[in-house]
Amino acid sequence: MPTAYRAGLLAEAELGHSIEKDEYEKRLDGLRVELLNLQYDSRSADFSTMILVVGDDRPGCIDLLHALHEWMDARYIETHVLYGQWSEEEIERPVFWRYWRRLPPRGRTGLFLGAWPFQLIDGALDKKLGTLELDAGIDHVEHFERLLVQDGTLVLKFWLHLPPAVLKKRLKKAKKKSEWRVEESDWRGLDDYEEGLQMVERLLRRTNTPNSPWTIVESTDHRYRNLAVAQQISHALRLRLESGAPAPEAPTVAAPEPIDEQLVLDRVDLGASLEPKHYDQQLDSLQGRLAELSRKAIDRGFSCVMAFEGWDAAGKGGTIRRLTRALPAQNVRVMRVAAPTDEEKARHYLWRFWRQLPRDGNAVIFDRSWYGRVLVERVEGFAKEEEWRRAYEEINEFESQLCEHGMPVLKFWLHIDPDEQLRRFEARAKTPYKKYKLTEEDFRNREKWPDYSQAVHDMVTRTNTSYAPWKLIAANDKRHARIEVLRTVCERIEAWLDGPGSGKSRKKRKKHKKGRKRQQD
Amino acid sequence: MPTAYRAGLLAEAELGHSIEKDEYEKRLDGLRVELLNLQYDSRSADFSTMILVVGDDRPGCIDLLHALHEWMDARYIETHVLYGQWSEEEIERPVFWRYWRRLPPRGRTGLFLGAWPFQLIDGALDKKLGTLELDAGIDHVEHFERLLVQDGTLVLKFWLHLPPAVLKKRLKKAKKKSEWRVEESDWRGLDDYEEGLQMVERLLRRTNTPNSPWTIVESTDHRYRNLAVAQQISHALRLRLESGAPAPEAPTVAAPEPIDEQLVLDRVDLGASLEPKHYDQQLDSLQGRLAELSRKAIDRGFSCVMAFEGWDAAGKGGTIRRLTRALPAQNVRVMRVAAPTDEEKARHYLWRFWRQLPRDGNAVIFDRSWYGRVLVERVEGFAKEEEWRRAYEEINEFESQLCEHGMPVLKFWLHIDPDEQLRRFEARAKTPYKKYKLTEEDFRNREKWPDYSQAVHDMVTRTNTSYAPWKLIAANDKRHARIEVLRTVCERIEAWLDGPGSGKSRKKRKKHKKGRKRQQD
Repeated sequence: MPTAYRAGLLAEAELGHSIEKDEYEKRLDGLRVELLNLQYDSRSADFSTMILVVGDDRPGCIDLLHALHEWMDARYIETHVLYGQWSEEEIERPVFWRYWRRLPPRGRTGLFLGAWPFQLIDGALDKKLGTLELDAGIDHVEHFERLLVQDGTLVLKFWLHLPPAVLKKRLKKAKKKSEWRVEESDWRGLDDYEEGLQMVERLLRRTNTPNSPWTIVESTDHRYRNLAVAQQISHALRLRLESGAPAPEAPTVAAPEPIDEQLVLDRVDLGASLEPKHYDQQLDSLQGRLAELSRKAIDRGFSCVMAFEGWDAAGKGGTIRRLTRALPAQNVRVMRVAAPTDEEKARHYLWRFWRQLPRDGNAVIFDRSWYGRVLVERVEGFAKEEEWRRAYEEINEFESQLCEHGMPVLKFWLHIDPDEQLRRFEARAKTPYKKYKLTEEDFRNREKWPDYSQAVHDMVTRTNTSYAPWKLIAANDKRHARIEVLRTVCERIEAWLDGPGSGKSRKKRKKHKKGRKRQQD
Repeated sequence: MPTAYRAGLLAEAELGHSIEKDEYEKRLDGLRVELLNLQYDSRSADFSTMILVVGDDRPGCIDLLHALHEWMDARYIETHVLYGQWSEEEIERPVFWRYWRRLPPRGRTGLFLGAWPFQLIDGALDKKLGTLELDAGIDHVEHFERLLVQDGTLVLKFWLHLPPAVLKKRLKKAKKKSEWRVEESDWRGLDDYEEGLQMVERLLRRTNTPNSPWTIVESTDHRYRNLAVAQQISHALRLRLESGAPAPEAPTVAAPEPIDEQLVLDRVDLGASLEPKHYDQQLDSLQGRLAELSRKAIDRGFSCVMAFEGWDAAGKGGTIRRLTRALPAQNVRVMRVAAPTDEEKARHYLWRFWRQLPRDGNAVIFDRSWYGRVLVERVEGFAKEEEWRRAYEEINEFESQLCEHGMPVLKFWLHIDPDEQLRRFEARAKTPYKKYKLTEEDFRNREKWPDYSQAVHDMVTRTNTSYAPWKLIAANDKRHARIEVLRTVCERIEAWLDGPGSGKSRKKRKKHKKGRKRQQD
């Protein structure tokens, strides 16, 4: 019996659980068959499984990994051992990019050792964070796991715990017996044990939700530990396969209904216009200004994301071309959002946007964006109501992570009225090289103008955050629209240069400079 | 007229071509319609288009890029401006990984500015390479382009040329007029002009093949340049769409036929075996040795790739598990090669393996590999004869690039005889948790044993290069096989540690160390 029973969530894993070899082998035999069969069945199921293994017993985590690889069909397991060694490409993107890029597709299992809980605890210990800062990190974790669960992912989390005395003994013994199984860093857990314990408890408590619960496992006896984890995996997989996809959460509170018919789009002054000669002058001067600003900003490690939404024929393409002409082509990519590939369809809908995020010093311009979820997917019924309803929150969180990384999110809605749209469709039909842009669907969509108006209204009002506000652009006059967009982009870059991009000691910039230095070696 | 006519391939682009504005606009009108229609048609075609734009007129390349983006449908163009700023993840992988990762899928167009020709010329100028070293680089380029062309890719290459006097004038003027369009590095072309010219000619000449020809375009007049490029793209696309996929190259020389029935596999002594107690001893000792060696090697930036092939039930999985147990799990990934995704199917068959290559300090173990092309795909008829026949050469080139990067390629064929296979199938059928491994197909495949034997023979003899030799493992006795593999892996790592991994001033290692340092900051 390692220690006396004491207060704390982890005390349940200090009881001295152990299992005799005979019993272990007996129980394991059946369990392995079941695990394999369940895994085999889940290959064609419509969900992915994410198994998170973390804890103060790092050698135990690795042992467990090997056991799981032996018992399950490793061909369908993607293993990621993530103890804080991040690449430049990862450091230069929002923090959760490193996890998003590793999401398993439906039908597959992702096995994560360390990962986000480790990063959080380790970072907090490093930076001596208080609970407030730790909580901010936990918020992201909570949100990430909820988003996965709502998308159907089976999230299983295991915390392997060793009482401190046992941990110390274990590390010493392991080092002596077969040096190669222990790393220097494994000892860290011991040094910071008591301090870390407080944070661990906080993390476990706050992220222990019914749909992504923690299983706290005593790791003193490897047989008990392996059996406990394998059994929980088997149990959860079976339940999930038998019960099918979880029922969508029925909202218990009605969604707010509009009282009047006032829409945010009605506030856009579509009469705004610009004389051709003023346009030419301003275009030239703004493009020059943008070119200069963007160079300066890129030198300082500036990255950003722009999303262009708007009615068909509102002039997104032409506006984007006026932008890109003034931007260094090597640092800017334009993404036309088309139908998702099967690798994309096999994951959460935001995955295809996460994978496109730029590194420091680069920008991506999206011609249509993740807002498709609450526009076309909502109106055309491609997304279920609970899916697009929760998307507002998911998008706000997504954009907040970009902004936290120091990557501004610029969002434009190019607004025109139905008459102007019709005029442009007709003009397109007459211009030979624009004909291809026009399909019958375009005309059909015009009938749904009111539905789309409501969807745009909801989108703008619900995602118009202070950190990533919408800019509504009057686009009945193309010249006016282009100048407005150019001016807004210039202003946002200036604000960045005066704010986050100004400090000489800015850590991120330093990081960036170093990165550039290395590449030139 | 810029200069007098002089010797050299590029002289054709110093004739002073230019086009009047009126004529330009007239010709452009029709061309734009045609370009769009062709591009639209090619979306559903079974080939991708790669447009390579490079030359001494870099501002011209960027201008052209913008023109093409305006004239074509940019939604189906993926643009990559690659002038030698590589990320850590790119530097730590074989050189061509940076191009493979950017291959467009079929139906799409990739527009590459700079890219491999620029890298070659720029690198050669930097390192003051002689023609021999330059030729080695050109070999890889030649091979890469041939491989793409044979896979159906339409490869269009443009060299934008400015006579030196014009180039100088152009840069000065551009700088004065609108500073933001010229970069410091654009001047480089001028400084090294004469020296670079020799290399450029050599590159153009050696990579100017009938199926991926260069179009040398005078860039003095932007209208002439844009028109010349757009017209060639239109012309090539039309021809390709009209004529369909190019006819497979009929071999003009018969493939060598075997004289006797001697197969390389017959040389494997299937009687080799190992006593259990010796096995346990050796396993323990070899795993310890491997653990130590792999740690040391990883510290020095060692990366490697292992490919396991063998008959069904030859024991690949069990052998791999014995390996991974002794390797640090965070640095080793096991890839079970399954059915390709649609993103993979839309590209050359090697793409799915290129995308899995490890960074420095990491290893990937492939359970089945790119050799599927010349084994199952050959025997089952999934690949056409000309496809699998050219695969030997493609694979040899692929592996040579890995080895050049300093990434050893370890290849194992686990050999058993048909009787042993049957015994194992029957045993599997009786072991509950191994049943899933067995399908009817497995038994059907047994009828094709002689075909597979011939395929294995051809594979081993044709890809048994000195830099990436095959190791044939007698696997009727699993213990013997596992020990043999472990020993081979140890020996190969030792050889690396004594050879390429030994020098203290080793550039790659230095690079790696720096990379690790940065990550820990």
